[in-house]
Amino acid sequence: MASGPKTKEPGYHNDHFVQLCNPNVATMNEDVLYHFSLSTSTHDFPALFGDVKFVCVGGSPTRMKDFIRYMAKELGLDRPGTDYPNICEGTDRYAMFKVGPVLSVSHGIGIPSISIMLHELIKLLYHARCSGVTLIRIGTSGGIGLEPGSVVITREAVDPCFKPEFEQVVLGKRVVRSAHLDAQLVQELMQCSADLTEFPTVVGNTMCTLDFYEGQGRLDGALCSYTEEDKQEYLRAAFAAGVRNIEMESTVFAALCRACGLRAAVVCVTLLNRLEGDQISSPHELLVEYQQRPQRLVGHFIKKCLAAA
Amino acid sequence: MASGPKTKEPGYHNDHFVQLCNPNVATMNEDVLYHFSLSTSTHDFPALFGDVKFVCVGGSPTRMKDFIRYMAKELGLDRPGTDYPNICEGTDRYAMFKVGPVLSVSHGIGIPSISIMLHELIKLLYHARCSGVTLIRIGTSGGIGLEPGSVVITREAVDPCFKPEFEQVVLGKRVVRSAHLDAQLVQELMQCSADLTEFPTVVGNTMCTLDFYEGQGRLDGALCSYTEEDKQEYLRAAFAAGVRNIEMESTVFAALCRACGLRAAVVCVTLLNRLEGDQISSPHELLVEYQQRPQRLVGHFIKKCLAAA
Repeated sequence: MASGPKTKEPGYHNDHFVQLCNPNVATMNEDVLYHFSLSTSTHDFPALFGDVKFVCVGGSPTRMKDFIRYMAKELGLDRPGTDYPNICEGTDRYAMFKVGPVLSVSHGIGIPSISIMLHELIKLLYHARCSGVTLIRIGTSGGIGLEPGSVVITREAVDPCFKPEFEQVVLGKRVVRSAHLDAQLVQELMQCSADLTEFPTVVGNTMCTLDFYEGQGRLDGALCSYTEEDKQEYLRAAFAAGVRNIEMESTVFAALCRACGLRAAVVCVTLLNRLEGDQISSPHELLVEYQQRPQRLVGHFIKKCLAAA
Repeated sequence: MASGPKTKEPGYHNDHFVQLCNPNVATMNEDVLYHFSLSTSTHDFPALFGDVKFVCVGGSPTRMKDFIRYMAKELGLDRPGTDYPNICEGTDRYAMFKVGPVLSVSHGIGIPSISIMLHELIKLLYHARCSGVTLIRIGTSGGIGLEPGSVVITREAVDPCFKPEFEQVVLGKRVVRSAHLDAQLVQELMQCSADLTEFPTVVGNTMCTLDFYEGQGRLDGALCSYTEEDKQEYLRAAFAAGVRNIEMESTVFAALCRACGLRAAVVCVTLLNRLEGDQISSPHELLVEYQQRPQRLVGHFIKKCLAAA
């Protein structure tokens, strides 16, 4: 359960192989990654994925395909007429794309959905004998006290009680795991935003909830049993605890990566300021531009790492 | 918070309008259903959806499109060359299809993902002034002590401690809601399976978990901190508590429908017997046939309701 090695140089993690926290997998003749529609008996994982150094994950399959196209251009690996086929074409649960050392995977919405994807992704990286891998979630979120379009690099992923923990039920019993993230990686990403000077970026805590409406204090769901004042009080308490944005995947992402010794970060854009409203009603084109901001920041980070390697 | 009216005749619910448990929505000038990419200011909800009487939901968008094609044929509403466009084409979060009185919506994987969809779906039905609506989840699951391919009609949706409850954190505090389902509807669906005599069907409790690997006692995830014996003990305790299958959406589905007075049921096929293994490694064609079973059962139910109306 050791965390990844800490160094000052980005990209300097190449000797660290991806490990599982499960002795059973090494003894299996075949491992079917059901939700990816991939299996060790039908796919050559080391040949397909052995060179992966960066895995970027996000909710929407369309956005993750856009990201791989963007990375191909940025890394000079784009060839005219080249498409990037979905590696998980046998299923519509998740979508996966690759260019050079970058893998881009969609995870759907919420902790259970990203949790399945991460279990199968970490096993994929293990079977492929990958080393020195960094995982980054590039997502969308609701901001607290920030101008919409601001990017938040997560210092700590926290639960709805503002604790940096991920609680899970295993065999009917509650298990709590740390949701701490890599402080060095946060600083490296913040430096990348300073390099770009394209959009406001802050380091802050990210609150992860199991529900978008009542779970985030919204007043506009099918159910609502509290007042505007109750909501404002809760969001202000979150702000006082260092929370700058709210999303639905960060704690389990941090906890699973940490448990398997993977260096991980969360970079989300805020689509609205929750102190001012609940509905996401900005024009479509503006929301699309906002969603490209984490991609640009992380794209710059990957290029910088590769140049330093 | 009243549950739907109970009657002996299927389809006899036409005077019961869909209600919200939130007084705020009626006062809003516009309601943006963000994750459907639909808005009351750009779409005429009563014209588009006012005739909906049956809403079927399931994880996979491809499967929910297959279901609407199947229902079109079954209801005699299929026209040569007709396609069924995705009503939520502006987003890739969820997919929605409609034929006659049947709406088919995908919900992704897990409680948070289906929860967002249900909040926006129930608001959609409310804005459309729908009445007498029945919601049915048609899904996949892992069975306990059942032959793979068996269909389970859920008596009670239960949490990982086998309680028929859905626990949620609202404004940082735990709130528990009942996950009871409509007993009359369970009997009507069981009668439909008896009419068909196509596949084994049982009524049993359905356990809903937040995780597919550790949360369901699997031994083949990226993390596993228990033994085969621990797993077997847990699954046997679940069986003793009446649990016949495990999936990831039923408690919140039951709780939200109940809170809004909607008649609801859960019908899932089992893809494997968890007492005998963890991996889903049956041939693709067999799994596809299994997944059609809840569709055939619910299709028969809808036809029967419409004939009786």
